[in-house]
Amino acid sequence: MFKKILYPTDFSNVSKKALGYLTQLKDAGTEEIIVLHVIDKRGIDAISRYGAGNAETVIREITKEAKEEGKKIEKKLIQSGLKVKMIIERGVPLKEILKIEEKEKISVIIIGSHGKTNLKEMLLGSVSEKVIRQSKSPVLVIKR
Amino acid sequence: MFKKILYPTDFSNVSKKALGYLTQLKDAGTEEIIVLHVIDKRGIDAISRYGAGNAETVIREITKEAKEEGKKIEKKLIQSGLKVKMIIERGVPLKEILKIEEKEKISVIIIGSHGKTNLKEMLLGSVSEKVIRQSKSPVLVIKR
Repeated sequence: MFKKILYPTDFSNVSKKALGYLTQLKDAGTEEIIVLHVIDKRGIDAISRYGAGNAETVIREITKEAKEEGKKIEKKLIQSGLKVKMIIERGVPLKEILKIEEKEKISVIIIGSHGKTNLKEMLLGSVSEKVIRQSKSPVLVIKR
Repeated sequence: MFKKILYPTDFSNVSKKALGYLTQLKDAGTEEIIVLHVIDKRGIDAISRYGAGNAETVIREITKEAKEEGKKIEKKLIQSGLKVKMIIERGVPLKEILKIEEKEKISVIIIGSHGKTNLKEMLLGSVSEKVIRQSKSPVLVIKR
């Protein structure tokens, strides 16, 4: 029931709060955590469109940061004796989350109630809410 | 983290699906389950207002059924070695859930994504969605 957990993260504080729950669930049968970070392609597209910077440089920088953040999370989970698969994708967060959910035959999704509190999130709407509505697996929502 | 679980139930099928998760969480440290069933006072009020029946008789009948359903759940949870407190309240479901959450110092709420699929639910909106938005504790949403 809690065997394979999908943990989509935008590295926000509430999302990191979920880490404690992940390690606790090991005793309820959790074996593997799929850590998923999606680099929102719409943000990247906007940068290109409005010429607000060199999109390729920005992507490289964002990907580098994501890998560093991802490694920290990976390390903590491995220390707790969990198997971890780290996935960094470029795309639309909701779509990628649902795609991985199906592909990886996920048991439960653990997600923060709110993403990073910035304007981008407010314009795009809450990814968590859409995941709760559209996923097939149970969703554990961690509140801020 | 999973010590004391609030399990609001309207006895719908998806809500009963949550039972399996509850017993599984015992290994992650769950000690006590508060099973909460709220008899929606607005439904009762409507019966009185439109004279669709003797409200007191209806309440008695509903309460009796709720107690029977509650006992079945209680039995299953106790068999799994969990401590159970059964609460049947009359009120507005969301308000009662949040009240008990605070009063009982709940660790996690487990709730079905959809209530009984009847017209009443569609008119009143989804209790689960409001709980997810307004609770302070993490919420595990079980999908149908």
